[in-house]
Amino acid sequence: MKLDLLAKLRETNPIVLNAANFVTVQDVANGLNALGASPIMSKEIAEVEEMVQMASSIAINLGTLTKLQIMQMKEMGLLAAQAQKPIVLDPVAVGAVNYRLQTAQKLLEAFPATIIRGNAGEIAALGGFAWNAKGIDAGSGSGDLDEITRKTAQKLHCTIIASGVTDTISDGQNIAHVYNGTPLFQAHVGSGDMLSSIVAAFAAVCDNSFEAAQTACLVFAATGELLVNDHPEVGPGTFSMYLMDYLAKVKETEITAIAKFD
Amino acid sequence: MKLDLLAKLRETNPIVLNAANFVTVQDVANGLNALGASPIMSKEIAEVEEMVQMASSIAINLGTLTKLQIMQMKEMGLLAAQAQKPIVLDPVAVGAVNYRLQTAQKLLEAFPATIIRGNAGEIAALGGFAWNAKGIDAGSGSGDLDEITRKTAQKLHCTIIASGVTDTISDGQNIAHVYNGTPLFQAHVGSGDMLSSIVAAFAAVCDNSFEAAQTACLVFAATGELLVNDHPEVGPGTFSMYLMDYLAKVKETEITAIAKFD
Amino acid sequence: MKLDLLAKLRETNPIVLNAANFVTVQDVANGLNALGASPIMSKEIAEVEEMVQMASSIAINLGTLTKLQIMQMKEMGLLAAQAQKPIVLDPVAVGAVNYRLQTAQKLLEAFPATIIRGNAGEIAALGGFAWNAKGIDAGSGSGDLDEITRKTAQKLHCTIIASGVTDTISDGQNIAHVYNGTPLFQAHVGSGDMLSSIVAAFAAVCDNSFEAAQTACLVFAATGELLVNDHPEVGPGTFSMYLMDYLAKVKETEITAIAKFD
Repeated sequence: MKLDLLAKLRETNPIVLNAANFVTVQDVANGLNALGASPIMSKEIAEVEEMVQMASSIAINLGTLTKLQIMQMKEMGLLAAQAQKPIVLDPVAVGAVNYRLQTAQKLLEAFPATIIRGNAGEIAALGGFAWNAKGIDAGSGSGDLDEITRKTAQKLHCTIIASGVTDTISDGQNIAHVYNGTPLFQAHVGSGDMLSSIVAAFAAVCDNSFEAAQTACLVFAATGELLVNDHPEVGPGTFSMYLMDYLAKVKETEITAIAKFD
Repeated sequence: MKLDLLAKLRETNPIVLNAANFVTVQDVANGLNALGASPIMSKEIAEVEEMVQMASSIAINLGTLTKLQIMQMKEMGLLAAQAQKPIVLDPVAVGAVNYRLQTAQKLLEAFPATIIRGNAGEIAALGGFAWNAKGIDAGSGSGDLDEITRKTAQKLHCTIIASGVTDTISDGQNIAHVYNGTPLFQAHVGSGDMLSSIVAAFAAVCDNSFEAAQTACLVFAATGELLVNDHPEVGPGTFSMYLMDYLAKVKETEITAIAKFD
Repeated sequence: MKLDLLAKLRETNPIVLNAANFVTVQDVANGLNALGASPIMSKEIAEVEEMVQMASSIAINLGTLTKLQIMQMKEMGLLAAQAQKPIVLDPVAVGAVNYRLQTAQKLLEAFPATIIRGNAGEIAALGGFAWNAKGIDAGSGSGDLDEITRKTAQKLHCTIIASGVTDTISDGQNIAHVYNGTPLFQAHVGSGDMLSSIVAAFAAVCDNSFEAAQTACLVFAATGELLVNDHPEVGPGTFSMYLMDYLAKVKETEITAIAKFD
């Protein structure tokens, strides 16, 4: 676990270009900004080339895709791949909606993702494993999530994060887990989207995508846990607001003190 | 008043599919989620069929409509009507903007709404009554709101909610009122949109749309009132954040204790 | 400095029509509403004529422009100019992205802005001065910001606000500065967008755009500073929430007591 990446992120303020979900976009921008990255959101294909040039990494979120946005995502991914900039894909709802799954597959044929972050149901769908999703939620599955994550990473030649109560991370060979967190992440819409873009911020400051993914998951999960330790009374609204405060002030030593991972 | 619907909603976590207003969409998603429903937002017509299939009910909000979105709304409504799923329409600004009124009327020709929730000016406009709207706010009118609500319900063959300081609800025959609330609902943009989607969540767990509408209005209004009783110092920002906490934790007994309705 | 404009704004509740940035739109709507203005957001060109007719002023934000939105912005600006309603332009990222700069220039050829509010890098780009932007942030420049602001105002025949730690305002002849504020404005994404729309609200209640601009900057900056004086522990999340409370309750006398400007 390379927790010193947090200091590196804050020193270098990487620019994360987002093809965003309009439901959660403000939270994602504020989360990136609070942590020390520099968010840009764009919807117009005519400016993608300039935006990618300026970006340190990109985050593509399928949350509220449209055909126009898919065209922009494809162009964004192609240009980022050419420029060898890290690409994070958040395949929202591919476990529940076939159109989403097909879209994710087409995008992944057009450009390689560096890291894919989804819930268990989304990762299982991308990997071709059976899982029982409920709406856009992870649902419950009986598969071996380690195996699903590892094999999906092998299939798609990237690092996979299946996030949830425990985050499972694999580059196709190694498996890592992050056990920190709080149920309030699930109670707030957009926690997953925020994590995906934060993963992109860490990928911008670390060549090893497996390490970037682990560190991002630990920083995010531990920050939420530290918040709830300090404010045990929070509900989903107060949690989401304090989360920004804690992302801005959380220290490496505080994370180390509570970190649970393997 | 069927307040036990709240427990039913939290047990069954109905999926509410939203054609959303981009100004308030994050709040709406978080409000639904906090209360115990499962929000989905979609902007792409190509996935509407799958989305409606998965949904328990749908909420169509005209708040920031575009021609593309109107096409999607129409398809969404048609499919939901075929599948006999409850449809809630929020006719934002139809009292102030003729293009909005025409759009709402065209949509209502294409599919029947189960429940329409708007402010007094919007309901009056749909019913064909004179009212003096101000911008997208309710404005002030001198009509008899009970009569306007009842007759609009008769005309449009649905349940109507004219929400405001007092919520007036009619199915064309019966009239109900909810007197709970707080002025802070008006001070926060998006309270109305959130209520409309919460009405859709209750309609998903209750076949009687008049009862679902009443219960949704009471739960929402009383939750805000309970919040302000506990935190009398809140302004519009802190109110909106605590609202999520209270939607997540509010109990049927707490609502019963302060409920004012007839 | 005409601080009595705040009372006038709250009495008259001007309607501010926004062509909005989808990242920050909810905050902008809530900020306008909290202060006492009445926000409307629109994305559809077919309703622009009615919307402009109803509006007291308009705010055009390039933050997440699309070709469709640019067409709507152009129409909105043309109609507002014909109706002699104040037009505020927020040229987000024109200092970093050439496509944005060209778009801003085309819009300004189509209609005159009354006030343009941006960061130093954006204003320098519009004025044709060298500056070193970083992503969509102001970056750092070595130019004389007074001179850049004044000359850009002369060139574009409008009032210019270059906002930042110090806000610099010019109508091409006079120069004003507002020194109040807090670094938390920079820590929260959307502070600038909110200020631009608040400038439009003040421009709706004051024929002198230079005075409207100054007053808006002082009210906004001092409100943030008062908030932080009362709550020194706030981070970016709690700041953004309290900001709504303080915009709703801030008094002219409180602003006067801490005002620093020339």
